[in-house]
Amino acid sequence: MCIASRLSPDRGATLSHVASPTAALRFSAGDRDQIGKTAGELIARMRRHGAGPGGSVTRLVYTEPWQAAMAELEAWFSEIGLEVRTDSVGSRFGRLAGERTEVVMSGSHVDSVSSGGAYDGVLGVIMAACAANWLAATQGEPVRSLEVFAGCEEESSRFACNFWGSRALAGLVEPGEPGRLADSEGVTIAEAMRACELDPGRILEARRTDLAAYVEPHIEQGAVLEEAGDLIGIVDRVVGVRGLQVSLSGVTGHAGTLAMANRRDALAGAAEIVLGVERVGRSRGVPTVATVGQIEVLPGGFNQVPGLARFTIDFRHPEDEVLGQLDGELRALIARVAAARELEAQVSQRLRQPAIRFDDRICAALEEACLDAAVAWRRMPSLAGHDAQVIGRLCPAAMLFVPSRGGVSHRPDEETRLPDIVSGIEVLARALFRLAYLR
Amino acid sequence: MCIASRLSPDRGATLSHVASPTAALRFSAGDRDQIGKTAGELIARMRRHGAGPGGSVTRLVYTEPWQAAMAELEAWFSEIGLEVRTDSVGSRFGRLAGERTEVVMSGSHVDSVSSGGAYDGVLGVIMAACAANWLAATQGEPVRSLEVFAGCEEESSRFACNFWGSRALAGLVEPGEPGRLADSEGVTIAEAMRACELDPGRILEARRTDLAAYVEPHIEQGAVLEEAGDLIGIVDRVVGVRGLQVSLSGVTGHAGTLAMANRRDALAGAAEIVLGVERVGRSRGVPTVATVGQIEVLPGGFNQVPGLARFTIDFRHPEDEVLGQLDGELRALIARVAAARELEAQVSQRLRQPAIRFDDRICAALEEACLDAAVAWRRMPSLAGHDAQVIGRLCPAAMLFVPSRGGVSHRPDEETRLPDIVSGIEVLARALFRLAYLR
Repeated sequence: MCIASRLSPDRGATLSHVASPTAALRFSAGDRDQIGKTAGELIARMRRHGAGPGGSVTRLVYTEPWQAAMAELEAWFSEIGLEVRTDSVGSRFGRLAGERTEVVMSGSHVDSVSSGGAYDGVLGVIMAACAANWLAATQGEPVRSLEVFAGCEEESSRFACNFWGSRALAGLVEPGEPGRLADSEGVTIAEAMRACELDPGRILEARRTDLAAYVEPHIEQGAVLEEAGDLIGIVDRVVGVRGLQVSLSGVTGHAGTLAMANRRDALAGAAEIVLGVERVGRSRGVPTVATVGQIEVLPGGFNQVPGLARFTIDFRHPEDEVLGQLDGELRALIARVAAARELEAQVSQRLRQPAIRFDDRICAALEEACLDAAVAWRRMPSLAGHDAQVIGRLCPAAMLFVPSRGGVSHRPDEETRLPDIVSGIEVLARALFRLAYLR
Repeated sequence: MCIASRLSPDRGATLSHVASPTAALRFSAGDRDQIGKTAGELIARMRRHGAGPGGSVTRLVYTEPWQAAMAELEAWFSEIGLEVRTDSVGSRFGRLAGERTEVVMSGSHVDSVSSGGAYDGVLGVIMAACAANWLAATQGEPVRSLEVFAGCEEESSRFACNFWGSRALAGLVEPGEPGRLADSEGVTIAEAMRACELDPGRILEARRTDLAAYVEPHIEQGAVLEEAGDLIGIVDRVVGVRGLQVSLSGVTGHAGTLAMANRRDALAGAAEIVLGVERVGRSRGVPTVATVGQIEVLPGGFNQVPGLARFTIDFRHPEDEVLGQLDGELRALIARVAAARELEAQVSQRLRQPAIRFDDRICAALEEACLDAAVAWRRMPSLAGHDAQVIGRLCPAAMLFVPSRGGVSHRPDEETRLPDIVSGIEVLARALFRLAYLR
């Protein structure tokens, strides 16, 4: 937590006496009630689209629940006076036209993971629209145009094409992708787009050159804010992610007749590495994470000593230099275990996303908004990837996190408390005011 | 190795001066050549039935390769003067009728595992037929009838019905089995039997009440004989086998955002248990074995912390008391890891085969045969299950092991050297002489 963030209401009141252009922007108690009610209703309405067992939400891009969710958002954008537009990949934009055509954009994605919850992604769209609505009502026309962004296929939960909507904005979709990438049932992106009356031949038209700034509100997906008692995370970096695919070969044998001393058990080796990965992740401390998420063994019989184990390692850190060190430690671990157990190890890199720094000016605008609103905040890295890291290639960008209860995400029980959402909208509105309304 | 077994040829010759009724049974150099040639040819002929890539053999019960193998054995039995009979489940018997109707039987199974080798099972049939053939030629009609047994579906490699042929002999096939148990393509045993012109309604007719003794020659499948330099294992026990199914539940989460300190990673817990199982198996020493052969994790995504891990534990020992202790140690290990990691463990027993003792008199006959033949031998347990443990419920039984090169079995490269096979046939012939020819 930032020291400046531990403000008492009095001290907050004092601060607002400073000649801040946004001093008048504090939400009234009535504003908080009204905005909380609107946001709560929208969350409930959106979670019906793709509702599954136990409160889960499965809203995969270009499916019917996704189309219905996009249509409902569109209707709501119109209702609150935003001018609606759909781009060539199906992302929606709700525009509050300003004096200038350059655009300050805010929002997130509408697609979910399979059996996810009601907050990841879509809450950012709802927060941005609530903020834009409040700004339009209280501040009128902005200097720069303000747009709410409702993007598509950030999660990679239907197609292996994550950041699809934001990559289209940045002109980063490769020509072959729509025809090449297929979902688990063999439907390609191109086919799925056509089923939504979108033309895969026009993807390049989604490219934007008019963006001046992007702020993405999102649930934290971790427990840092909750544990620290902070309400806002100002995300100034995205961790780098690396992925290794490991294959360990030993010797298969009969579980009865192959004596313990003669075994070259691939799973036992993999188990040693799984624990080593955990140790590497823990010993480096926060924010390092290292995970073995997939494992399979062959031949896989109950009474057979595994001769082959294949598994993945995902590791993340905000500093590329540390990522390189982690990579070295993990590869040394694998080599050490393989040598000690006479196994043959093959390691290949399956993912390498460098760490990303967000824009200082956008972070500063968010920081000032937190100071103005007198909420407890902290600067922090994002430990997951987000559209903002792609849109950040087009224009200055940063993110704002609101707390996730229990640090839970990608699960039916993910939740952000409504008062925290309203505080997030207030901070976002103040920041967007600074970015879109000040000359 | 038994001390008595380290006989020099001279000392062997001395022993043969003792008034042993089998002293005259030693194979001549010509016998060894001829029998080695016959056995080698038969191995080569049988491995063609079900031949696959890399020298592998896949000869599943009631399939065409299995039928062809059985037909070829039948033809060979007839050729060497044995009277052939097929029982109601398809096992074949080659009979050398004696003065009495009571039967001394020897043989093994003809089915293989998937992608197995050319020795496991069928070598025992070949050895028994070679021994019977030599006895008939040199000793004439036995007192008790001698039968070579070629059984079916010992391996459980097509249907989950292992010891099928021997269970039919013992009347231990349950009425519902033929219609209930299906192979991976949904074909039931009953359907597969009908395709071989066998009537599943007549399984009970396979039951035998005339058996006086059973000796099963088999490859060791382990490296004990080879490492000790012994040629023959006299198997006086079969290890007990227990199987546990373990399910560990933790909490799923995003590999990026779920901090290391907040994880309840089911795979990390499973890894600790896998290493613990290995430690338990090793620390008890030979002949204890303990194996995790199957594992799966959910949700199983590259970037997801596993919330669930399911795996099996197979453990074996010749003493039921030790098996009970191992069961306790393993369950305590699981409980300890689960408690330390705040995981929920569910453990169920999926297999419990008690340890079995073979018959002392049959073992003694084998031991005397080894002494007579002056080959290095040892008493040992079988660490895998065999038909002999089922037939042992009908009549006195035991097994004779010949060395497996490198301890390998259930693999295309499994092999027993031809001179070792001939020595095994010589010992078997001497033992069968004691059991079938002496009054």
